[in-house]
Amino acid sequence: MGIIVQKFGGTSVADPEKIHNVANAVIKEKENGNDVVVVVSAMGHTTDYLIKLAKEVTKNPDSREMDMLLSTGEQVSIALLAMAIQSHGYNAVSMNGQQVGIITECIHSKARIVDIKTEKLQKHLKEGKIIVVAGFQGVTPDGEITTLGRGGSDTSAVAIAAALNADRCDIYTDVEGVYATDPRIVPNIQKSDIISYEEMLELARVGANVLHPRSVETAKQFNVPLRVRSSFKLDNLGTLIIGVENMEIYKPVAGVAADSSQIRILLSELPDIPGTAAKVFGELAKNNISVDMIIQSLASNGTNSIAFTVDEGEIESAIEIVNKVKTDFNAGEISVDDNIAKVSIVGAGMVDRPGIAADMFKALAENDINIKMISTSEIKISCLVEKENANKAIKALCKEFGLETEIEAVVKGDLPNV
Amino acid sequence: MGIIVQKFGGTSVADPEKIHNVANAVIKEKENGNDVVVVVSAMGHTTDYLIKLAKEVTKNPDSREMDMLLSTGEQVSIALLAMAIQSHGYNAVSMNGQQVGIITECIHSKARIVDIKTEKLQKHLKEGKIIVVAGFQGVTPDGEITTLGRGGSDTSAVAIAAALNADRCDIYTDVEGVYATDPRIVPNIQKSDIISYEEMLELARVGANVLHPRSVETAKQFNVPLRVRSSFKLDNLGTLIIGVENMEIYKPVAGVAADSSQIRILLSELPDIPGTAAKVFGELAKNNISVDMIIQSLASNGTNSIAFTVDEGEIESAIEIVNKVKTDFNAGEISVDDNIAKVSIVGAGMVDRPGIAADMFKALAENDINIKMISTSEIKISCLVEKENANKAIKALCKEFGLETEIEAVVKGDLPNV
Repeated sequence: MGIIVQKFGGTSVADPEKIHNVANAVIKEKENGNDVVVVVSAMGHTTDYLIKLAKEVTKNPDSREMDMLLSTGEQVSIALLAMAIQSHGYNAVSMNGQQVGIITECIHSKARIVDIKTEKLQKHLKEGKIIVVAGFQGVTPDGEITTLGRGGSDTSAVAIAAALNADRCDIYTDVEGVYATDPRIVPNIQKSDIISYEEMLELARVGANVLHPRSVETAKQFNVPLRVRSSFKLDNLGTLIIGVENMEIYKPVAGVAADSSQIRILLSELPDIPGTAAKVFGELAKNNISVDMIIQSLASNGTNSIAFTVDEGEIESAIEIVNKVKTDFNAGEISVDDNIAKVSIVGAGMVDRPGIAADMFKALAENDINIKMISTSEIKISCLVEKENANKAIKALCKEFGLETEIEAVVKGDLPNV
Repeated sequence: MGIIVQKFGGTSVADPEKIHNVANAVIKEKENGNDVVVVVSAMGHTTDYLIKLAKEVTKNPDSREMDMLLSTGEQVSIALLAMAIQSHGYNAVSMNGQQVGIITECIHSKARIVDIKTEKLQKHLKEGKIIVVAGFQGVTPDGEITTLGRGGSDTSAVAIAAALNADRCDIYTDVEGVYATDPRIVPNIQKSDIISYEEMLELARVGANVLHPRSVETAKQFNVPLRVRSSFKLDNLGTLIIGVENMEIYKPVAGVAADSSQIRILLSELPDIPGTAAKVFGELAKNNISVDMIIQSLASNGTNSIAFTVDEGEIESAIEIVNKVKTDFNAGEISVDDNIAKVSIVGAGMVDRPGIAADMFKALAENDINIKMISTSEIKISCLVEKENANKAIKALCKEFGLETEIEAVVKGDLPNV
């Protein structure tokens, strides 16, 4: 008996039949005795269609008008879902971002939520109504319509759950939960029953994009228990994501992820004077190039070498910048390696269990996988390996850390890209 | 130099190319030195598509949710039109009903406007912006989205023009103006350059549905000059509709219209006592059946007979009700005549020019057209004739009252049904 916020994505409401499936999932939660708020995205390919229309009108559509345009997509979904719920004999009411009072900054196409008004939501809940809220959209204090950018609907759901002090926020998706790695690579991978926000964030950042990091960050900030679960198997509880402080037991390694989209740049023979690293990464940052792993090492001749990875899309601008720095410091050669994949193990349990890193390196070595570069954080260890070894590495690490099940996972729908 | 409100219907914004045509018409008015507010409907068949979607979800969609759904149609149009105007280098901003503050009663699917806030409109106009407003929709003081029902976008435009004290409200349509009758029947019919609200209302009621009567009523109430003009021929000024008190000269007969959709019911041998007519029409009104022409006459035997016309769609319920009344009053036979058409001449000039009625009857007689029933109002005379004589009657009357031109009218687009 509490408040449950549910979120369904665009594929879950793609047509009237699917909308009725969602209505059933909503009613099931209501029948469990809970107050229910449902957040939905635009139907199927609606957003793509609207973007195409705008591009036909003008090459550079104004972002304010794009928000005006795109926000209609969710408004269509909420009206239809409310109708579907009503057709099963339940009381439902749809609300767009404006009507709820999902207040955002005035930054079009990627606004951040600053406040959520709860008066109307509370009033409708008190009257026993199921509330259907448009995700992805908000409104500025001045009445301008905004959208929240990528992962927006997940963020809407989590923020509403936080504002209502909900018991849980359930993100319904086309996968059955969060897996310790990509089931396409390790078919008998375990679904995690429980995982921490921090682990989820690390897994998301290295490629397991079931949830947008932004929604996980928001859930973490307001301590909203999140559940990632399947729209198709309503009895399956999926994966619960909570604060690490609330977890009684957890595995040292919660997941394994790989990212093959990075390229390594090595700049050698930099003078061993203060400010060289600051110069290199300062220039990259100025040009909006995100750097992932960084290793600096002192060579025997007293010079430094700096190796780092960037996304393959940014390799050309990165090389141009590094070339300038090279000239400035009269440094040695630049070498570029695109035959790399980053394989990471993630787990909140690493903190107080020594030897996890050693176990990782040993498992890779036993499988003849050479490590090109290592970086570590509190709850993550990443190794660069050769691209063709990525899948072998993932399998080895899943086995090493006991992430496989006896039976093969049944894989449904689109899986996250690795 | 003033404020011009323009209104474009769904066919005018049906695709990106047409949206650019509308943008040109808007810019032309801006370049004339006017402040411009444009009201648009949903693109082409959007509303039909949304209704179809709703019907696929449930047979009886809730009217509140239908309004939520349908109001997205106009929001798409306004965003795209604002983008199109901007792409030509002009400053434009779109506003939905909520953002403007088009306040309505809380009656879903057919709300009436009770107030229009002008602060934001005035602010944008002061900043030199072209404002693109969503027609057909409003919002209750409580923030509920409503729609205005049939003719809604025309009404939105006229109401905004009234609120802003605009110089004129231009209704762009697929005809070139208001014709004295249907150009399909009389190809060389005159387009009216100027016509009064009252004449337009009478013409609209008898079938010339260029404008919804509601928008004309609103224009009349607030004395907003209306112009009906072509979206395709921007240089054509169309027809100006103003108050009869502002017209310096006008023809005695402004238009001829026909309506073949009515059926005549005759109830004879009613006792000549008070209350019989009240009973008949009271019962019909209770059942929401609109009655058009009514004639009561005293027969030589001292009984009354009442003849009236109803829309053909309501004939069965009407007969059922009349049958009950017949029993109550022990009246004579009921006869039903569906071979009728109502032919009307309309003109504010009738009031002070005697002999118009006689001219009408004479013109019909000269063409061997028998008159079955006559009814008159201040500015209209209607005759029931046999259905097959309707077109002949229209041609005869247009000739009689000088409504033809030397050249045949060029007929474009869909014409109003007669």
